[in-house]
Amino acid sequence: MAPDEKTIQTLVEIITHEVLQAYENADKPTPQGAICKVETADGIVVQTCFDEHGRVVGAGAERLTTSLGFVPQDPSIASYIDHTLLKPEATPDQIATLCEEASTYKFASVSVNPVNVQQCADLLRGSSVKVCSVIGFPLGATMTEVKVYETVKAMEHGANEIDMVINIGALKARKLDLVARDIREIVNAVHERGGLLKVIIETALLTDEEKVIACLLAKEAGADFVKTSTGFSTGGATIQDVALMRRVVGPTIGVKAAGGIHSREDAENMVSVGATRLGASAGVKIIKGEAVSGSY
Amino acid sequence: MAPDEKTIQTLVEIITHEVLQAYENADKPTPQGAICKVETADGIVVQTCFDEHGRVVGAGAERLTTSLGFVPQDPSIASYIDHTLLKPEATPDQIATLCEEASTYKFASVSVNPVNVQQCADLLRGSSVKVCSVIGFPLGATMTEVKVYETVKAMEHGANEIDMVINIGALKARKLDLVARDIREIVNAVHERGGLLKVIIETALLTDEEKVIACLLAKEAGADFVKTSTGFSTGGATIQDVALMRRVVGPTIGVKAAGGIHSREDAENMVSVGATRLGASAGVKIIKGEAVSGSY
Repeated sequence: MAPDEKTIQTLVEIITHEVLQAYENADKPTPQGAICKVETADGIVVQTCFDEHGRVVGAGAERLTTSLGFVPQDPSIASYIDHTLLKPEATPDQIATLCEEASTYKFASVSVNPVNVQQCADLLRGSSVKVCSVIGFPLGATMTEVKVYETVKAMEHGANEIDMVINIGALKARKLDLVARDIREIVNAVHERGGLLKVIIETALLTDEEKVIACLLAKEAGADFVKTSTGFSTGGATIQDVALMRRVVGPTIGVKAAGGIHSREDAENMVSVGATRLGASAGVKIIKGEAVSGSY
Repeated sequence: MAPDEKTIQTLVEIITHEVLQAYENADKPTPQGAICKVETADGIVVQTCFDEHGRVVGAGAERLTTSLGFVPQDPSIASYIDHTLLKPEATPDQIATLCEEASTYKFASVSVNPVNVQQCADLLRGSSVKVCSVIGFPLGATMTEVKVYETVKAMEHGANEIDMVINIGALKARKLDLVARDIREIVNAVHERGGLLKVIIETALLTDEEKVIACLLAKEAGADFVKTSTGFSTGGATIQDVALMRRVVGPTIGVKAAGGIHSREDAENMVSVGATRLGASAGVKIIKGEAVSGSY
């Protein structure tokens, strides 16, 4: 059962306040007592907790091994990649090639617009490659009920994974109940159907404070991943943002870096700071180690 | 009643073939007989018809005066403008300002994302300014049924005008039945509710042939306007494209130029070649005659 509006609002206020405090004061002693700071690099999460005098009261380390914040068994970077073709002018022939490449290289999924889901589901039936679609994409500025409907339809057509865009204007205006409810409704629709939800926060448009709030709201609403970018805004994933997002959500959910990942080096850098999924249209070139001159 | 699939497909084939022929051979004699060519400038439409020997067999001129291809009574360029704010990070405060400006300057409408429709409808109640929203925006790559649902919801929230994006990939792949059916379903939903539909063809991604096909399909499906661009692709409206679109659709429906209209001169140029509506975020500066340095 979804929590009611008041509960969400209260949760959001408490969590936002506490974690913003924790984030902003992470290196300073605080009167509230122990503050734990999470850092991630090379697939390892380290957590260090301090008391109010700044003394270390505990520390621990673990590999990212949960089902979502996981490090794939396959050491190949391929298993991290959502092989992506979201250009509006993509044709069925290009979508077929995308699916073929995804099967050949064993990418995690193909990531396509809703109109292409059925074709991908047909082509990838029996394959380990998932079909990922995008919802409210790329502006995130349609109504929650429309996002839910679009999600249900995409899953009926065969999508297993859903990447949704948050209501960015509501986040900017601190209408956090709207942001949280929007995510929560899609979480419910996706999980009821056995799927996996990634929440795109569009980092390029956000302040660091807004990035933290968005990640916490997404985690609290039950998202399986937070994701940096649509690839259609003013910028894509940065190392700093991926590291921040991993620090904020901790090791139990996934972080997907997307937008501007053009080479194997880009991909490995993102993974080293905590990304557990990569959205890229250059997947084949990344696997082959062919550096691509990036843009953004 | 909507025509069935076969009827639409047949219509599309006939019309596409005939008008492409007419367009491509407009200045050449053809064995089929009279070919009529429509040209528009300064709000005047001129039609000239030629026989198979290239001799003029008829000519006529009229002002754009139908309800949609209309030249507004108000000589001010303001009445042409859809005052536009589609950035995903737009806040309620910015939307309120947009509505206030639209009332002050008597713009045709405010053009906003679906999440902002309710607020605009509330603020503009009793005003002559319409509320326009965007559907399947800006990629056009979601399912028809989702576009219809989004349209119905936007109109329930108070939208009077709907700007939809076509299925561009299907157009590229010449799956014209899909393109036509997609437009037709939204036309029906909008007209049943007393609204007005503009069809965005995203000229920057299309060849001239594709632009012609898209305009004809939209006109045949019953659209009230064809529109050049979303403003989110690789380019906006050009003089050449607006002139082409007016020539193709004739004088009975509207043409909306959008994307990259930054100054009064830009606006007047678009109108002179046949635009009857302008989508612009710089409406106030256009009215005040303040040239804005454009980008695209």
